[in-house]
Amino acid sequence: MGSLNLNHSLKPDSDNLENLLDPEEFRRQGHMIIDFIADYYKTIEKYPVLSQVEPGYLRKRLPKSAPYDPEPIETILHDVQDHIVPGLTHWQSPNYFAFFPSSGSIAGFLGEMLATGFNVVGFNWMSSPAASELESIVMDWLGEMLRLPESFLFSGGGGGVLQGTTCEAMLCTLVAARDQMLSKVGRENIGNLVVYASDQTHSAFKKATQIAGIDQKNFRVIKTSRSTSFSLPPDLLRSTICSDIKAGLFPTFVCATMGTTSTTAVDPLGPICQVAKDYGMWVHVDAAYAGSCCVCPEFRHFIDGVEGANSFSFNAHKWFFTTLDCCCLWLKDPSALIKSLSTNPEFLRNKATDSKEVVDYKDWQIALSRRFRALKLWLVLRSYGVEKLRNMLKSHVEMAKTFEGLVAADKRFETVHPRNFALVCFRISPTAIDKNKLSQNRGAHFDDDDQDHDHECINDVNHKLLESINASGSIYMTHTVVDGIFLLRFAVGATLTEESHIFMAWKVIKQHAEDILKDYV
Amino acid sequence: MGSLNLNHSLKPDSDNLENLLDPEEFRRQGHMIIDFIADYYKTIEKYPVLSQVEPGYLRKRLPKSAPYDPEPIETILHDVQDHIVPGLTHWQSPNYFAFFPSSGSIAGFLGEMLATGFNVVGFNWMSSPAASELESIVMDWLGEMLRLPESFLFSGGGGGVLQGTTCEAMLCTLVAARDQMLSKVGRENIGNLVVYASDQTHSAFKKATQIAGIDQKNFRVIKTSRSTSFSLPPDLLRSTICSDIKAGLFPTFVCATMGTTSTTAVDPLGPICQVAKDYGMWVHVDAAYAGSCCVCPEFRHFIDGVEGANSFSFNAHKWFFTTLDCCCLWLKDPSALIKSLSTNPEFLRNKATDSKEVVDYKDWQIALSRRFRALKLWLVLRSYGVEKLRNMLKSHVEMAKTFEGLVAADKRFETVHPRNFALVCFRISPTAIDKNKLSQNRGAHFDDDDQDHDHECINDVNHKLLESINASGSIYMTHTVVDGIFLLRFAVGATLTEESHIFMAWKVIKQHAEDILKDYV
Repeated sequence: MGSLNLNHSLKPDSDNLENLLDPEEFRRQGHMIIDFIADYYKTIEKYPVLSQVEPGYLRKRLPKSAPYDPEPIETILHDVQDHIVPGLTHWQSPNYFAFFPSSGSIAGFLGEMLATGFNVVGFNWMSSPAASELESIVMDWLGEMLRLPESFLFSGGGGGVLQGTTCEAMLCTLVAARDQMLSKVGRENIGNLVVYASDQTHSAFKKATQIAGIDQKNFRVIKTSRSTSFSLPPDLLRSTICSDIKAGLFPTFVCATMGTTSTTAVDPLGPICQVAKDYGMWVHVDAAYAGSCCVCPEFRHFIDGVEGANSFSFNAHKWFFTTLDCCCLWLKDPSALIKSLSTNPEFLRNKATDSKEVVDYKDWQIALSRRFRALKLWLVLRSYGVEKLRNMLKSHVEMAKTFEGLVAADKRFETVHPRNFALVCFRISPTAIDKNKLSQNRGAHFDDDDQDHDHECINDVNHKLLESINASGSIYMTHTVVDGIFLLRFAVGATLTEESHIFMAWKVIKQHAEDILKDYV
Repeated sequence: MGSLNLNHSLKPDSDNLENLLDPEEFRRQGHMIIDFIADYYKTIEKYPVLSQVEPGYLRKRLPKSAPYDPEPIETILHDVQDHIVPGLTHWQSPNYFAFFPSSGSIAGFLGEMLATGFNVVGFNWMSSPAASELESIVMDWLGEMLRLPESFLFSGGGGGVLQGTTCEAMLCTLVAARDQMLSKVGRENIGNLVVYASDQTHSAFKKATQIAGIDQKNFRVIKTSRSTSFSLPPDLLRSTICSDIKAGLFPTFVCATMGTTSTTAVDPLGPICQVAKDYGMWVHVDAAYAGSCCVCPEFRHFIDGVEGANSFSFNAHKWFFTTLDCCCLWLKDPSALIKSLSTNPEFLRNKATDSKEVVDYKDWQIALSRRFRALKLWLVLRSYGVEKLRNMLKSHVEMAKTFEGLVAADKRFETVHPRNFALVCFRISPTAIDKNKLSQNRGAHFDDDDQDHDHECINDVNHKLLESINASGSIYMTHTVVDGIFLLRFAVGATLTEESHIFMAWKVIKQHAEDILKDYV
């Protein structure tokens, strides 16, 4: 890259300013990175899935300051390999079964590259008409694939927008609902608005309510139970709303979930929307994980009732082969959103906006600047087509079913909840453990019949199992606790995962379980 | 890509499921896209900079629904060329002088590709330690380059975080300040918090206050004037605050700007921070555009006084060669932010977080999921190094200076405000226009000495000039209106722009001006 002249004057030495976007140098370095990433995918199974580094590892390896002189890409890529890769948790590994996987794909990657290459800032129509228009088109395509009611599509007076994440979608819809309610009851009542969720609702919703200035004493958490598979009970929702109204408060927003993070529980959308309708509230349906699955006719019934909701979102970056970040949000009444989020400074005034014939997406989201996210979704839809996308999703569900079968066939394990999608929650069964050994292993300071103690010990055994598996690096799973029960979560969905990985994962789990159970049987 | 079996059963036909992340297919298609983008840059000057399509153009060209069967990448790329490229406004064109340019670079692009390829969801340390740690490291590097006070760096008890955009940075800091104030004065006072900005502050701040639930009747817009180059007057800020306190309100937040969007005005940070300190308020410094320039010692003085602020942000995607989106935010007291934005659901519990030895960036921003943005910033810093980055920024300022000289040398034009950075605001001068002709061209229903009429006509002439230039597609500029004066904004900063483009742009502007002035001289 040539050596730099050490001339500090204001006048830069133009000889040394080869352009930072020189097309031929772009080509050379771009091809190099493609090979780097292709090789990474090819060899990804050799890395421990969960990074095994210690906190602070990277500061010890990198210089204290930015370099003064340029460094060649070859050196930098060596450092990526030597210093960054060991600190990655390999979300694209076929042995990744943690949280919910983030399913990349070639088409998703290419779409992101194109968007990055064009690097347009599509805040309004005029700033790049293709960005706004393609977004509206793919959101209608996708809405149709999901058989969303026409009222959610542009063609039916609603509309869709690509947000970064679910938390943003929740925040934007909540702000729209908040302002709608305040315009009825008066701004001075901001401290009296009430929002509702279940104890299984994603924490992102609580965060959204904090940001939107909802008094946290008015954040109602409706209790779910094992008997209804942890779905939000509409009756309890209704009675809570009634008490709030009696107390002079204003019920404003319900967040219903289709596919909760802990166990993929599905809230009954129809009855929830009916309750909300009775009290003039906004219902948002968070289908972050499982929404994509509803493009398969077999799974569409899970969002039956969505026609009563005000807004619906899912993350295409989660289980729809579109790299991070890409949250699809549809609304029946975008004008409520626009009312809360629009600003019209002089420097953005233009004929197209004034004509009201165009969508200016800056008024549909938090930020002004926005990436051309529609490209990656368009590339995914076109490269794979509806049928293949359905088949890919179904293959993940099938693999989860296979795993569930393996667990069920081994009496040392149990699944605690019915599986809805591609997540299996399971644990070492209490029946696999000798109660006397439990006490020995804990120091036996409880009575033998102390059920709490047993319960906690069983959780400990399962916790140990998870830690031991993850420390091995062979596969990566995470956990949840519902109803006091510690569960291992096995989430199928990483794009590279194939059936053989499921069997291998089960072998790893059994091996670690056997080692741990030695002390308890 | 093979034809698909039309079997609709739940059990997918695994023969047809070639993996969507197959490394060799990734390599083949990836190389194809690199060439596509390199060729795009190579030929970018042949496109009209501002897209010339009509609203709704794309719906007419694309199918009504997503395809059922896969389509080959070759077909899709043809469609990108034929249908998407005409609808782009070419932000990467060397003839792009609108808004503030979004300066891409090879290193920024490569960093984005790596982040997309790894596709990790770095919400907390454990989910990918390298993502969190590299972010903290580059934010310290960059903070040091800007000579930010040590108190803004991790090494000094503060810290930096990469947000998507300035609006997010403003919203997060505002929420932190809001909650800090409410914890003192009581939540019931949310309707009595007051925030302050100037009439030149970016509209993103107003939007942030709307989202955070600040009553808009408590949004104070401090008037600026031409005499102080449109910078926020600290005395007026103080007197406004005093009136608010007298009225029983709680002054909470000031947004100061270093480099306003209209004219790159610089608010006096030192005096503003002193006022805010006297009343226990939070000051955020929005240096979205011009902050990067302060890595050059010659420009550092523009943020003198920042040591009194609570937070400072700039957009690396604007003028620091890092593709969209990448907003750098530093805070003296990250714990205030974390207090407002943290959530700790069970499914995210882990040893590293419990140890409190790590940074979990999910608690520093709105969303839970987050891209590995630090990679692109790291690649930019390393690929170019401090000196070359300074030289690039200075070369843009030099080009703006050259342009300013061309305007000054032509008595038909005038610059209205002093140039601070790489933006020149100018217009056809009123002296270039024959007043009698003005009246003729407007129908002369005003008195000859009607100054308002003249003023408006001069604005119209300049508006016409801008529209005529942009419609030609040769270059793209945008406008602003300050103090009632319509100004053309010529913002240098697109990475491909070189000195020759400045002279060419000036030639285009002169030609169009001559055509228009024919009617007025």
